[in-house]
Amino acid sequence: MKYLFLTYLSVFTLLSVHAQKEKMPYQNETLPINERVEDLLPRMSLEEKVAQMRIFHANIGVKSDEKGRLELSDRVIEKLKLGIAGIKNPGEHISPLAAAKLNNELQKYIIKSNRWGIPALFVTESYNGVDAEGCTKFGRPITSAASFNPELVHRVWDVVGKEARLRGMHMCHSPEADIVRDPRFGRMSEAFGEDTYLTTQMVVNAIKGVQGDYEGLGNGTHIGAVAKHFAGYGQVLGGSNFAAIEISPRTLIDEVYPPFEAAVKEARTLGIMASHGDLNGVASHGNPELLTGVLRDQWSFDGYVVSDSNDIARLYYFMKVAESPEAAALMGLVAGIDIDLYAEDSYAYLPEMVKKDPSIEKMIDRSVKRVLRTKMILGLFDNPYIDIKKVEKEVRSKASLALAQEADLESIILLKNEGNTLPLQKSNQKIALMGPLLNEDTKAAFESVAGKSTTFIADKGFELTDQNKGVPNLLHTDEATIEKMVGLAKESDVTILFLGGDEFTSKEAFFNNALGDRATIDPVGAQDELLMKVKALGKPVIVVLKHRRTLSINTISKEADAILDGWDLSELGDSSLAKIIFGEVSPSGKSPVTIPRSIGQMPFHYSMKEINFKKGYLFIENGPIYPFGHGLSYGKFEYDNITLSNKTITPTSEITVSATLTNTGKMKAKEVVQMYLKDEIGSVTRPDKELKGFQKIELSPGESKTVSFTITPKMLEFTGVTMEKILEAGDYTVMIGTSSKDGITTKFRLEK
Amino acid sequence: MKYLFLTYLSVFTLLSVHAQKEKMPYQNETLPINERVEDLLPRMSLEEKVAQMRIFHANIGVKSDEKGRLELSDRVIEKLKLGIAGIKNPGEHISPLAAAKLNNELQKYIIKSNRWGIPALFVTESYNGVDAEGCTKFGRPITSAASFNPELVHRVWDVVGKEARLRGMHMCHSPEADIVRDPRFGRMSEAFGEDTYLTTQMVVNAIKGVQGDYEGLGNGTHIGAVAKHFAGYGQVLGGSNFAAIEISPRTLIDEVYPPFEAAVKEARTLGIMASHGDLNGVASHGNPELLTGVLRDQWSFDGYVVSDSNDIARLYYFMKVAESPEAAALMGLVAGIDIDLYAEDSYAYLPEMVKKDPSIEKMIDRSVKRVLRTKMILGLFDNPYIDIKKVEKEVRSKASLALAQEADLESIILLKNEGNTLPLQKSNQKIALMGPLLNEDTKAAFESVAGKSTTFIADKGFELTDQNKGVPNLLHTDEATIEKMVGLAKESDVTILFLGGDEFTSKEAFFNNALGDRATIDPVGAQDELLMKVKALGKPVIVVLKHRRTLSINTISKEADAILDGWDLSELGDSSLAKIIFGEVSPSGKSPVTIPRSIGQMPFHYSMKEINFKKGYLFIENGPIYPFGHGLSYGKFEYDNITLSNKTITPTSEITVSATLTNTGKMKAKEVVQMYLKDEIGSVTRPDKELKGFQKIELSPGESKTVSFTITPKMLEFTGVTMEKILEAGDYTVMIGTSSKDGITTKFRLEK
Repeated sequence: MKYLFLTYLSVFTLLSVHAQKEKMPYQNETLPINERVEDLLPRMSLEEKVAQMRIFHANIGVKSDEKGRLELSDRVIEKLKLGIAGIKNPGEHISPLAAAKLNNELQKYIIKSNRWGIPALFVTESYNGVDAEGCTKFGRPITSAASFNPELVHRVWDVVGKEARLRGMHMCHSPEADIVRDPRFGRMSEAFGEDTYLTTQMVVNAIKGVQGDYEGLGNGTHIGAVAKHFAGYGQVLGGSNFAAIEISPRTLIDEVYPPFEAAVKEARTLGIMASHGDLNGVASHGNPELLTGVLRDQWSFDGYVVSDSNDIARLYYFMKVAESPEAAALMGLVAGIDIDLYAEDSYAYLPEMVKKDPSIEKMIDRSVKRVLRTKMILGLFDNPYIDIKKVEKEVRSKASLALAQEADLESIILLKNEGNTLPLQKSNQKIALMGPLLNEDTKAAFESVAGKSTTFIADKGFELTDQNKGVPNLLHTDEATIEKMVGLAKESDVTILFLGGDEFTSKEAFFNNALGDRATIDPVGAQDELLMKVKALGKPVIVVLKHRRTLSINTISKEADAILDGWDLSELGDSSLAKIIFGEVSPSGKSPVTIPRSIGQMPFHYSMKEINFKKGYLFIENGPIYPFGHGLSYGKFEYDNITLSNKTITPTSEITVSATLTNTGKMKAKEVVQMYLKDEIGSVTRPDKELKGFQKIELSPGESKTVSFTITPKMLEFTGVTMEKILEAGDYTVMIGTSSKDGITTKFRLEK
Repeated sequence: MKYLFLTYLSVFTLLSVHAQKEKMPYQNETLPINERVEDLLPRMSLEEKVAQMRIFHANIGVKSDEKGRLELSDRVIEKLKLGIAGIKNPGEHISPLAAAKLNNELQKYIIKSNRWGIPALFVTESYNGVDAEGCTKFGRPITSAASFNPELVHRVWDVVGKEARLRGMHMCHSPEADIVRDPRFGRMSEAFGEDTYLTTQMVVNAIKGVQGDYEGLGNGTHIGAVAKHFAGYGQVLGGSNFAAIEISPRTLIDEVYPPFEAAVKEARTLGIMASHGDLNGVASHGNPELLTGVLRDQWSFDGYVVSDSNDIARLYYFMKVAESPEAAALMGLVAGIDIDLYAEDSYAYLPEMVKKDPSIEKMIDRSVKRVLRTKMILGLFDNPYIDIKKVEKEVRSKASLALAQEADLESIILLKNEGNTLPLQKSNQKIALMGPLLNEDTKAAFESVAGKSTTFIADKGFELTDQNKGVPNLLHTDEATIEKMVGLAKESDVTILFLGGDEFTSKEAFFNNALGDRATIDPVGAQDELLMKVKALGKPVIVVLKHRRTLSINTISKEADAILDGWDLSELGDSSLAKIIFGEVSPSGKSPVTIPRSIGQMPFHYSMKEINFKKGYLFIENGPIYPFGHGLSYGKFEYDNITLSNKTITPTSEITVSATLTNTGKMKAKEVVQMYLKDEIGSVTRPDKELKGFQKIELSPGESKTVSFTITPKMLEFTGVTMEKILEAGDYTVMIGTSSKDGITTKFRLEK
């Protein structure tokens, strides 16, 4: 492959070149965007239009070095002659500054290469920070969901949006708005957990954060979001990636759609990505009812819909719902996919297809307008370059790292704390840090928090997995290793075990050779054995959990004196854990999922129909290990005095429910006060309860506060027998409490 | 409670009393049934009508002794003054002869007690033979499904129908037409397995068998069937009885409805029972779309719909979709439930409700007509009594028992036969019969088959469960017991282990204290340990499986030299197993379910969407332990020469696919030749393959036969994107083979 070397030209030179020409209306930033789009579109050839419907990955021929110098392959140069909708991940493996330079160069080249000077979207992923070299690594979405703090999520994603834009990115294929209820699914940590309401709050705040002020998106400080995967991807059958999805229409509307609807209506997401799979038999990438009917007609979405990787082509070769690649392209186009991500053999056929059937061009125009409009909203026609002076100062700044730690501290969940094992005192003691989830720098992080009086021994002991040609294998741990670890625990006053699952035990699954889903959720390897043997020493054992899927921690929940669940924290995670362990901050995270005893209890989420909870299984204890919303504190919170402003609500009125929260403990702490509603009788079978509000409250020892929630008629709506949203007169129970299982209740009535 | 003693009057006396009166039109058996119903209905009071919509259980006050003498409680006497739709299980615990006498007495009393002389339906259950004392006990439905022999099922249910009628029964709440795909569900053995086509064949033949000649139902030789549970009951979430059901509309139509549709249209079932649960949020007992729209309007069902036990009342107190018992009654009535099974506080409210809203009476009339019509079809107005002379001769006759054994012999599945361990020779040897599923008379059954040269030791060793106040507990087995059993195996030449699950490990679940569903499907207790220790002796080990749910027999499939899977056989089951083991008959059963490695693989049935099979899970082998349709033979079958009569099928033509089957083995044997179709491309995601035909063929050693199947356009239909049944042009693969995984294929095209 030959590469073209491009010399670095200053942005200002290029801008002045453009300024010399007379502006065409689409170039005039004072005109309304729609007018500009309508001006540009008719100028474009069919091939140029279709180029605005394709994104390719930078790995096909956009290269760079640490100086941000650009090299393009012939293949890329050829493509860019017509313009392009976007490029995925240019410069992902170079520093933010180099990436900013590279992306300025690349954009400049693109603008120059196509007849109309149309800029490209540079696209990244960003579920735990910008997925690129040198950006702040935050906790994963499921971790941040545990914070039950949407304002914090907003601030985190605000940083993500800024860091991405400073690298030269314009869009991110994030956040996931999927409801994840099957821990077999290797991608569950990429979304915000099992609950529709919590996920909705987090998705809205993530998008608002990453997009900044929607009206100011043209200022070039933030990026556009792409909420994914529409719809139902969190419910792949068997938790198996690429499998079919079966969700009844009512469940779709009431439980799966709301985060997407809010992403569109409240958060004004610029993009939506379709789901890999089918949905009740109809491929999502070929589903006009979903992508046009629901998204456009019902919700008035005006951004663009992008395919998931290669998924339009997959309608033919994988989903087998199209008879040819051309038929697949047509199916995607008709359904409403505006941009084809990656596929070489799909929308590329559109120009030929228009020759045979000119009516297709209208649908192409529809999509191209959406893409051009997005580029104008993002200011790319007017202000396409990064001010590279800001990059080094603002990306991964101290403030951003502090925020990452703040988010950790609000997200770590204290699942168990027998006899107040935690917090540990910063006193003269010896602590063993062990287990397969220990990092190289864990000990240093703990030493820095605990101070000099505490001595640490650190020994990872064993690994859980290795990989053979990309296939993860479970490793056997010999007894000698365990005995050595037990010996270290014996020499120590306290043992902290870092258990859970490594990255290979839970990841995005592809095909036979790249697995990531599991059929059980039991912790793997010698972890339970290690815990039991250390526990047998009779000294305190604290378990720190790091993992990317819910684990059925039966032994851990029984044997550990205390359990801190961190899921997958930020790059400062170990320091954050140490701060919690040594009592600098009280834990305040709450579990964003139900923690089941066995995969055989699935489906199992707290908001299932009440009728699902009438049951139990032979030979195992009924109920979860820990319920949704569970999380302890170093404070001690008491709930009392639940009152309603009115015992009756009407379709046009709201009522307020209040309760008194008191910290009767000895430490200042935050508590997530949760408000659940239950419809006692409905014309369709109703959830056992539904989270409809939460507030994170900080109280000093002895302090009391009245916490109030507004109950709106909207919260009581559901999809009735006739598939219309309805409000039904009758009795409702409201619970205010510390988890989905533990709270104080009162009743009110809806009258119509 | 006081009881009224009724003296035994001869049937002939009673008939002559009736003959003295002048017949009213409804009593005139020469008139058409509809005319008779239209005559009777207007004569009835509202209260009398509603009485024809209720069935009570005999245990509320119908008592008898072994002489068939009748005692009625005051409560029953009071009820019968208005007449009654039916009584469940009168005389179930007495001999067939006593029951026949009792039921004649009871019917006579009922006819005399109500003004219009309306007889009652006596109702039983009959999934493995009539569920009453003294009737032939056949294998369970899932066992008979393994026979892949619908003609045999027809003969079995013919006997069931006759035995039931001879006891004085008129209807059975059987067969189950549910598709059972979740082995956690405690009732899975009551239905015919995971496959829609196989279940449909079996349900149709069960109904035709039990009902005999539909036109001759009035002759009093057979009974009416009630196909259940409409709809989706086999798919309760989590395999948990009473839980919600989520099935997408397309799956419902293509996979769940067909056995019911065939029960109505082909088999002309007299009754349908609704499903306990909801269906996608709408309670099945309150679902007019289901019970009237689908059943009546689409399928023209003209029998009656009966509730499941108490389920109309449960709309209020359990499902919580009705605000009061009265609202629940109205909901059931509107939906189309004609008969309320058991509930005291539901349809009992209808007369009061009519006073408030007279329009309700029309719906009552609709239901009462259906009930009266059924009674007339069954000849109860004209010929209400049993000829007791036949009872003892015909119930549980030698021929019926021989049929039960014949069914067993066709149903036992040879899952594994390493090195032709089976059949055993009837030679001089010592065989140990052991394990928790051994019966008291197993040894005698084996001795009777094997003859005198073989010596048997029998030792059950241990039990799997006991019960504490109705709650099953798993039992611990001590090492001494295992060692003793291993010692017996050591003294023997061959060991046959009877493993699986006892009745308490899989049963119908009710609420917390009466569990029957499981969260795992691993064999319980010390069974695997026993097997491994016996296997370590180095002598042949044969495992016989007895169970009522699919078990993930990972260890058994690895360690046993041969595995015979009997599910739950007839009362002659051990004798049947011995006949197979000693080679009197070659096994010919095929697994009616996929046998998974773990509950974590669920859902997992062979006919899932093709896209579900692209996957796999970390750390476990992909695929099932044994696929659907798998079953070995003592013969050796080779498939060859697959040919099509035509490579093209059209919407109005059929084609024939043929293959040559040769028994290259040394023993005469039967083979189930299975024909699967696969739609290569469809507008909705399509099954990996679907069973669409099978034939059971017997071949002598060296014998060859050409087996042909007709492929009809109907077999290629599915529910398209617009929810209409469609036929799509394109390529199809047909496989003829020995299981769902193993066969020879060819392709054809559908052209339109």
